[in-house]
Amino acid sequence: MSVFTPVSERQLAAWLKNYSVGALTTLEPIAAGIENTNYFVTTSQGRYVLTLFERLPAVELPFYLELMAHLARHGIPCPAPIADLADRYLSSLNSKPATLVTRLAGASLENPGAAECAELGALLARMHLAGRSYGGYVENPRGPKWWRSAAGEVRHALDPARAALLEGELRFQAEHRHPDLPRGAVHADLFRDNALFLGGRISGVFDFYFAGVDCFAYDLAVCVNDWCLVAPERDRRLDEPKALALLGAYHAIRPLEAAERDAWPVMLRAAALRFWLSRLHDKYLPRPGELVKVHDPEHFGDILALRAAPGAPAPWVA
Amino acid sequence: MSVFTPVSERQLAAWLKNYSVGALTTLEPIAAGIENTNYFVTTSQGRYVLTLFERLPAVELPFYLELMAHLARHGIPCPAPIADLADRYLSSLNSKPATLVTRLAGASLENPGAAECAELGALLARMHLAGRSYGGYVENPRGPKWWRSAAGEVRHALDPARAALLEGELRFQAEHRHPDLPRGAVHADLFRDNALFLGGRISGVFDFYFAGVDCFAYDLAVCVNDWCLVAPERDRRLDEPKALALLGAYHAIRPLEAAERDAWPVMLRAAALRFWLSRLHDKYLPRPGELVKVHDPEHFGDILALRAAPGAPAPWVA
Repeated sequence: MSVFTPVSERQLAAWLKNYSVGALTTLEPIAAGIENTNYFVTTSQGRYVLTLFERLPAVELPFYLELMAHLARHGIPCPAPIADLADRYLSSLNSKPATLVTRLAGASLENPGAAECAELGALLARMHLAGRSYGGYVENPRGPKWWRSAAGEVRHALDPARAALLEGELRFQAEHRHPDLPRGAVHADLFRDNALFLGGRISGVFDFYFAGVDCFAYDLAVCVNDWCLVAPERDRRLDEPKALALLGAYHAIRPLEAAERDAWPVMLRAAALRFWLSRLHDKYLPRPGELVKVHDPEHFGDILALRAAPGAPAPWVA
Repeated sequence: MSVFTPVSERQLAAWLKNYSVGALTTLEPIAAGIENTNYFVTTSQGRYVLTLFERLPAVELPFYLELMAHLARHGIPCPAPIADLADRYLSSLNSKPATLVTRLAGASLENPGAAECAELGALLARMHLAGRSYGGYVENPRGPKWWRSAAGEVRHALDPARAALLEGELRFQAEHRHPDLPRGAVHADLFRDNALFLGGRISGVFDFYFAGVDCFAYDLAVCVNDWCLVAPERDRRLDEPKALALLGAYHAIRPLEAAERDAWPVMLRAAALRFWLSRLHDKYLPRPGELVKVHDPEHFGDILALRAAPGAPAPWVA
């Protein structure tokens, strides 16, 4: 937990009187997560997650909460925000914007196989289809504009080879935009630790607070770069069977287009660049007062270098 | 099942392509229910109930579906309608209005005790509070106007004593209207077989298709007349401990008002009258082609006679 706003049982019990979820039974802080304060909340009615927002201002939150509500009512297993008695998803607790969402069953997988990658691919396709009727619009907050600004802040920390990789990639991406690809509201951060499995089936996806409108193929590339590696800790090459399982299951539900095939290698590089930059940013420009669990930026520096190498494989199904 | 519209697996699998709920696994007709065609539906994503509406026309359904959606997003354990890819809760299947809703866990109780009556009372209070922010408006379709019209159709079948009971009660109710009681969207049919329990806790309420705007105390009276009898099959007197448990749990969440106390005996009689009339109506004027499982009308004739007797007890908490 990076920034932590304590909530007592007494405070929460009083706050829950604004909801129709019954009486508080247990309250348990969640250690994972680097953005917000999260608690597991159990009431006489059910299991929930309480989130106090530490980074995003209240004015930006409706896009995310309404997106989750939209997807949940389409049957996507994502946290469903609970409306309070004033019919709002967002209120305030201990001076922080706060929301209560349903808690999903299941556990994250560290080493998903091809079958689990297929589960994710199918769900991602269903999310993309369901999201097409969502009316909210926020551009991907970690898109090209942000890349350029973040690059300006972190390039001083890079050795010459990595600095050249960064400059070269920013130039390459600027020359290879794909404004005509199918777009919509995408999760944009659907790493293994943001998905849950139960009995071999995917049972939930969560942490939508980096979502925005972007290419569906970019969302796929974010997933493939995290879920479909040969061995994340030592071999960042793409595992072709896993990648094909993920893409194949996706394609069976939302058929991929020729333009998406053409853009695929660019998307894999864009997705690597985005997380390399954000991890560099977290490492070299931590927010004041933060105790962020810093992920190694070079994991994604290496992935980018691999994806950008001449002749790099980019398995594709369609 | 009264009127049955068959749905094949092939038909349903094709229909489900308009949804984001995954692929069809199993389809199983539900034998209970006297109004609509219902199936249990399991997909790769979850468990649902498919309803084809046999009585209500499509134009009247949004009130009910939006009410269920409203309550579900407030945390009430009721079926949540699933939106299709065109973002609609209602579509059409085999020429009937059709909807897909989440399936709740648990089983109905034939003989709830005081603890279960308290569970129901607490949930009913939470439903009433959550329903206050619901914008839809349909008057209780089985209210005084309907009583008078139904009475005109069934009184020929009653013996003189029962005919006098009916006429007397219609007159009594007309003289004792309570337009100023707290009102809102109410279930109005929350019998034991429309609630589910799991591990001693109430886990769901369903069948909202007689809901409408009416007095909260009337909704309570419908419940008390079904849940809180000494022995439903042979002794229709109110079981005071059960009634007090239900009312007490309700009162702890939505405090009952003095006006509701004053109106309580009238509400118990109104709730008995409504179900006496509808069961008489189902018995003597069945809809064409129907195979309705007819409930004995005299169960509620007896309850009304008991509640309307001079000095009849009407346990109350507030």
